[in-house]
Amino acid sequence: MKSRSILAVLAVTAAAVSLPAAAQFQKPEDAVKYRQSAMTVMANHFGRIGAMVQGRVPYDAAVALANAEVVSTMSRLPFAGFVEGTASTDKSKGKAKANIWTDRAKFDASAQKMQEEVAKLLAAARTNNLDNIKAAFGGVGQTCKGCHDEFWIQ
Amino acid sequence: MKSRSILAVLAVTAAAVSLPAAAQFQKPEDAVKYRQSAMTVMANHFGRIGAMVQGRVPYDAAVALANAEVVSTMSRLPFAGFVEGTASTDKSKGKAKANIWTDRAKFDASAQKMQEEVAKLLAAARTNNLDNIKAAFGGVGQTCKGCHDEFWIQ
Repeated sequence: MKSRSILAVLAVTAAAVSLPAAAQFQKPEDAVKYRQSAMTVMANHFGRIGAMVQGRVPYDAAVALANAEVVSTMSRLPFAGFVEGTASTDKSKGKAKANIWTDRAKFDASAQKMQEEVAKLLAAARTNNLDNIKAAFGGVGQTCKGCHDEFWIQ
Repeated sequence: MKSRSILAVLAVTAAAVSLPAAAQFQKPEDAVKYRQSAMTVMANHFGRIGAMVQGRVPYDAAVALANAEVVSTMSRLPFAGFVEGTASTDKSKGKAKANIWTDRAKFDASAQKMQEEVAKLLAAARTNNLDNIKAAFGGVGQTCKGCHDEFWIQ
């Protein structure tokens, strides 16, 4: 029964599960889809905090913290998906510029800076103080914009 | 400076941030993209555990646990995206069947069952024992398959 259920999972998550050993993605497009998905989830939950920061929804400390925890988890994920040979060739399908790979050290430093700012946002959310969250939110936003300005097709 | 950086974030994550109060998604398609993204990330990390369960990559307790933690976080997210009026009308773009909404109680119960099985998988990963992970992995897989069989356009 267990082996049958595992086979069933293989059918459901074939793209993710049918990996060659030591590789996380079977095909380059799987890596693109993964990183875009992780970014989408991160942006959504960051945006939910933003709605509180901007006063469009009431501040709820528990909700803000839950969202900050998701943002923190997601902040570590997308970068595994930036595998070689996956610069965007069609802006409508993705915006990853080739300089991500030709200037990888700078890209990686930008990713790390974002993760550090997200860590500050999570710490701020744990204080249950909206002013602290507002201050940290801006720091994260700057790293979003900085990296997208430089490494996204505009 | 802070308000400028917040404005910058608005530009980057406009879809997520420009929400009406009390709504998580501005447009139905944002909800679809969000739930698909969360499922993609969940399936990827579940698949990484699967690779160890099936012996295609060596068992690494820390890596398995890290993946189980991501799966656990993701398991709570997609369901907010199943908003009314977002059944798939084009199988190539999404597979959510209309019975998700006409039989919502059953769908929600299936989601909860999956989350319970994922909690067991996370607990198993914390034991640092591959046999425990194998047993729990099958349980999660059954809930994936069960829900997709019933609520996905085949």
